[in-house]
Amino acid sequence: MAFNFDKYIATYPDFPKKGILFRDITPLTENGNAFRQTVNKIADFVKSKNADLVVAPEARGFIIGCPVAYKLGIGFSPARKEGKLPGKKVSASYGLEYGKSTLYMNQSAVKPGQKVVVIDDLLATGGTIGATIKMVKELGGKVVGAAFIIELSELNGRNKMNDCDVLSLVKY
Amino acid sequence: MAFNFDKYIATYPDFPKKGILFRDITPLTENGNAFRQTVNKIADFVKSKNADLVVAPEARGFIIGCPVAYKLGIGFSPARKEGKLPGKKVSASYGLEYGKSTLYMNQSAVKPGQKVVVIDDLLATGGTIGATIKMVKELGGKVVGAAFIIELSELNGRNKMNDCDVLSLVKY
Repeated sequence: MAFNFDKYIATYPDFPKKGILFRDITPLTENGNAFRQTVNKIADFVKSKNADLVVAPEARGFIIGCPVAYKLGIGFSPARKEGKLPGKKVSASYGLEYGKSTLYMNQSAVKPGQKVVVIDDLLATGGTIGATIKMVKELGGKVVGAAFIIELSELNGRNKMNDCDVLSLVKY
Repeated sequence: MAFNFDKYIATYPDFPKKGILFRDITPLTENGNAFRQTVNKIADFVKSKNADLVVAPEARGFIIGCPVAYKLGIGFSPARKEGKLPGKKVSASYGLEYGKSTLYMNQSAVKPGQKVVVIDDLLATGGTIGATIKMVKELGGKVVGAAFIIELSELNGRNKMNDCDVLSLVKY
């Protein structure tokens, strides 16, 4: 029987601001079995893509991306916000409701030709993961998949990733 | 032979500001074998403490804390910055060089009596991990250990944790 991931996701109206229905994964990670099932399911997908590397944006992307990389014995590279990475970097910006935000990756984070799966907790409009994918490609990586716990289907983020397979465990 | 974790840690002078020698763990996480060895070593420590839960502060604490929890099949609860957790929370503040910062945890993050190991990438003065420990105790948890990849010994952060065992893999 399929594991009911949905049961472990909490919903908060008007967070972080009015009109946003926030999906909270902390009940899922706080439960050892639910956390393990989530990571195993996403790791199966990453393995099926023969990925060499997991890349995830901070901070919630790390919560799933790091154990997936660990389980498969492959590396993990973070996409981070301003002021967090000390060395030579690439960057990519993406639009927010008001203004824009920028993510950064180490220039050495991806080796040319590496197969990469990008992972985050939630796929909404695809801004964050789109910026992450852009940097991986700039560094010469091949994005072979994108995986999320949650997908907000009506925001059509999936359409921004039409050249790689997308996995999500729970759709709203 | 002991694994040489030190070899995978990069050092940057004057980051994020003048006078700070920044220790960067990204070369370690980008290497599948080094990342796995790191997580295994810390997971052995957490297992020896019979911990029920891992708690780690964002964002680098998640990089090690989450795979450790995954490996042991136990839960993971994050300590997060302002504006990130939607529900009922506890908080604890800690001093920075100038001013202070505050971390938050879900009120339901720890069940009374649970044995908790706190994990972060680096132990410096112990401010961040001290605030995390304070919240775990406020929620009724028992802090049975604290684990880090790196310890900056001369800053004496270890002295702030005299009621739990401390593990670090690399000391500077």
